Amino acid sequence: MSPAFFINRRKENIKMSELIELKAVAHVKNERPEIVDGNWDTITSEILLRDDLPAESLRGIEEFSHLEIIFFFHRTEKTITGSAHPRGNPLWPEVGIFAQRKKNRPNHLGATIVRLIRVENRKLIVSGLDAINGTPVLDIKPVFSEFLPAEAIRQPAWSHELMKDY
Amino acid sequence: MSPAFFINRRKENIKMSELIELKAVAHVKNERPEIVDGNWDTITSEILLRDDLPAESLRGIEEFSHLEIIFFFHRTEKTITGSAHPRGNPLWPEVGIFAQRKKNRPNHLGATIVRLIRVENRKLIVSGLDAINGTPVLDIKPVFSEFLPAEAIRQPAWSHELMKDY
Repeated sequence: MSPAFFINRRKENIKMSELIELKAVAHVKNERPEIVDGNWDTITSEILLRDDLPAESLRGIEEFSHLEIIFFFHRTEKTITGSAHPRGNPLWPEVGIFAQRKKNRPNHLGATIVRLIRVENRKLIVSGLDAINGTPVLDIKPVFSEFLPAEAIRQPAWSHELMKDY
Repeated sequence: MSPAFFINRRKENIKMSELIELKAVAHVKNERPEIVDGNWDTITSEILLRDDLPAESLRGIEEFSHLEIIFFFHRTEKTITGSAHPRGNPLWPEVGIFAQRKKNRPNHLGATIVRLIRVENRKLIVSGLDAINGTPVLDIKPVFSEFLPAEAIRQPAWSHELMKDY
């Protein structure tokens, strides 16, 4: 970690202009080398822990059926800060970048709940991860049912349509 | 954004040793100034968009009942890379940092699903956010029901016990 990282963290309030420096804790290995939309449900991925992190950091993780993976869309170059049609589809409304899950967002962060298939020492085998081969993983969190919405989810029609071929 | 950020993103594979630089897109305003565990369900928070991001980035977000907020535990100094008892409770097993949601994790990232109460121009009013006043927000994503687990969640007994007074 750079000194700047520690300086940032010690401040009571990070100024909005300051950079927050993170380091991948793992990376994704799978058979999808390029960014393409759709059919993510057929992909099984391995999440390989960074060399200097101990296997102990995964102890007990096999007791959870689902994990949340926070990752960095490292191949995404364009950033949208305003609004756009989801998937560029003019039949859907132009909505703000924070009202969609598109990768071209400020900070290029992804967050996906995956099924944990098994653990092999320093490796997690998961399904349902919509990240390409080589993707840096920034965090791995267990899913607690208590943190999932207790109420019904309300969402616009376009989002259901988009998910039909995801 | 610094030049380093753009260099990182253009690489096919980010080396695990490289830093990924992010910038807060918003910050949290609420009445919990210090880190204390528990009773987060009583807290209502405002999420205030960074000055140079347009209100248009939130367009249409009011059609979603729930949002996922990714944030940085900016007041957390200690980092655990191995395992620990959740909440320091010796009655619970010592589990790896990635098998718990504790803030002292590599990268100090939080991710919480919140209820969107209302939108006021550049401000989101939410409940259920377990982040203190001044917390930098790194991303705001709408919750799509299709991304939530379709199957039952399996999780260890300690995690249910921990959530009783959350």
